[in-house]
Amino acid sequence: MKPTLTAIAREANVAVSTVSKVLNGHTDVSPSTRRAIERLLAERGYQRPRTARRTGRRTDLIDLVINELDSVWGLSILAGVEEVVEEAGLSLVVSSVHNRQSLTRRWLESLLARGSQGAILVLSELTEQQRAELDRRNLPFVVVDGVSQPPPDIPSIGATNFAGGYTATEHLIQLGHRRIAVIGGPEQLQCTRARIAGYRAALESAGLGADRHLVRYSSFQHDGGLASAQALLALPERPTAIFACSDAQATGVYEAVRRAGLGIPGDVSVVGFDGLNFAEWMAPPLTTVRQPLHEMGVAATRTLLRLVNGERLESTRIELATSLVVRGSTA
Amino acid sequence: MKPTLTAIAREANVAVSTVSKVLNGHTDVSPSTRRAIERLLAERGYQRPRTARRTGRRTDLIDLVINELDSVWGLSILAGVEEVVEEAGLSLVVSSVHNRQSLTRRWLESLLARGSQGAILVLSELTEQQRAELDRRNLPFVVVDGVSQPPPDIPSIGATNFAGGYTATEHLIQLGHRRIAVIGGPEQLQCTRARIAGYRAALESAGLGADRHLVRYSSFQHDGGLASAQALLALPERPTAIFACSDAQATGVYEAVRRAGLGIPGDVSVVGFDGLNFAEWMAPPLTTVRQPLHEMGVAATRTLLRLVNGERLESTRIELATSLVVRGSTA
Repeated sequence: MKPTLTAIAREANVAVSTVSKVLNGHTDVSPSTRRAIERLLAERGYQRPRTARRTGRRTDLIDLVINELDSVWGLSILAGVEEVVEEAGLSLVVSSVHNRQSLTRRWLESLLARGSQGAILVLSELTEQQRAELDRRNLPFVVVDGVSQPPPDIPSIGATNFAGGYTATEHLIQLGHRRIAVIGGPEQLQCTRARIAGYRAALESAGLGADRHLVRYSSFQHDGGLASAQALLALPERPTAIFACSDAQATGVYEAVRRAGLGIPGDVSVVGFDGLNFAEWMAPPLTTVRQPLHEMGVAATRTLLRLVNGERLESTRIELATSLVVRGSTA
Repeated sequence: MKPTLTAIAREANVAVSTVSKVLNGHTDVSPSTRRAIERLLAERGYQRPRTARRTGRRTDLIDLVINELDSVWGLSILAGVEEVVEEAGLSLVVSSVHNRQSLTRRWLESLLARGSQGAILVLSELTEQQRAELDRRNLPFVVVDGVSQPPPDIPSIGATNFAGGYTATEHLIQLGHRRIAVIGGPEQLQCTRARIAGYRAALESAGLGADRHLVRYSSFQHDGGLASAQALLALPERPTAIFACSDAQATGVYEAVRRAGLGIPGDVSVVGFDGLNFAEWMAPPLTTVRQPLHEMGVAATRTLLRLVNGERLESTRIELATSLVVRGSTA
């Protein structure tokens, strides 16, 4: 039998309205009472009836929560989300949480107070606690994983990172390269792992061994690519091709190659990952693995709207295909 | 004496609730009735009492309306706006209107229906009609003018475009250049005019005449910069320096210089405008006039919050200073 609000309130020895306040994220409940009630709601497996939420305060709001509003990467996802939200006659609330737990908490509360219909999360990590709070409030959400892949039971949209890493490396092998280096993002990120796994698989398929000196990890930014490429080019036997796991890193690789007095693609071929606008304007234009970021935003929002309408998903995980865009930086 | 809703309703021969519906942007009023009432409200100078709006349905929403979500330029403004909205404990609704009047109209209605506190507009143009609708509903708004400068009585935030154009040109003159070309954005835009006026003023100050063949107009994008620079480099007496009115255009200038078999800054010096991230990663890194886009977003939001609180502004127009960032593309 499913527990009711009344039963929870009786067990916690508080008024039903107090339980309701906790469920709805109101702040006028003492922290200790809130914690006690939240524990009880979780233990008893309370699920807010869908109808209650739907007939409650209705708004036309959808939330997008993003770690940082500082990259073209996030902007492309945002544009895709906005497009579908607008088509559906809804409005989009955008929040940036800067990786801070306190802000994530505050955002969650304001989202519930506003009566948002659901949320799209573009976070580097979704903690167990955040997930539990979303579940408990029965608020539909979808994760767009640029960086980490969420557990299989969470609705999520991603790109085919493994396939992207494989294709990039295969392209370099077909051009005749044998010493191919890779610069990943931070090592603990799922997308880094998948791209580097793709790189290794492509080398193996071609009967090439992976030299561990040729695998580097750094931030996804320009500076990370620069430092890693400088280290790679200083090796006794330097690589003839470098696969950078982001376009921003690739701009750093270009800089390192220039500083070493070498040429692209004459001495070193370079492949990026993302397919952002500026990659096309680089000199030479960058060969890169395009992520369908706009389409990922669109797909995430369509999935969210289905959840809001109470539909069941056939699959909680969708991966959109990456594609190799060959330009002037590889030969 | 100020007209009341009742007086307007009597004069229009409709119910007070009908006038109220028009004021609040509801759609269940016939277009002809709506037009008649809107005309009357404007003619009689109706102003909704501030208290009525404040004590009505209150929300914690601020709106940002932007033409396109497709450039780092807009992203920087958005990040600044989001920062202040979040600090104020409010939430930010983001809409993109793609320059389409129908969408702007729909956005305005949904904004009123939601009970937004106020709006920040990043539009290429604010029409008389849009402005009248915002005024009539007594909805505070602030314009961020990347591209056009609104009338002086509208609260607006901009950059010192004239000074930016002046500084860029002066820098090139000081380096010894005499044949300096400029590539503006679309000619009708106020920001283009101001930047080119700055360019002309700097030439005049140095006793140099402006050669009309050296002044081009194009889109603010890569392709516009490429085509304009190709035309400039094909002149019998080609310029030794090019000032591009956007960083994206400057990437096109780089491409044109490369295709002409020339070098930067050896043969041609290049200055951009905007100061976006990727300018730093170009080869050579781009000398550019930095616009304080993030700060413009911050200032616009602070101004809007003052209006929401019923404060009076000392000045409706704020211009934030641009600054020249000298890098490797000028010599």
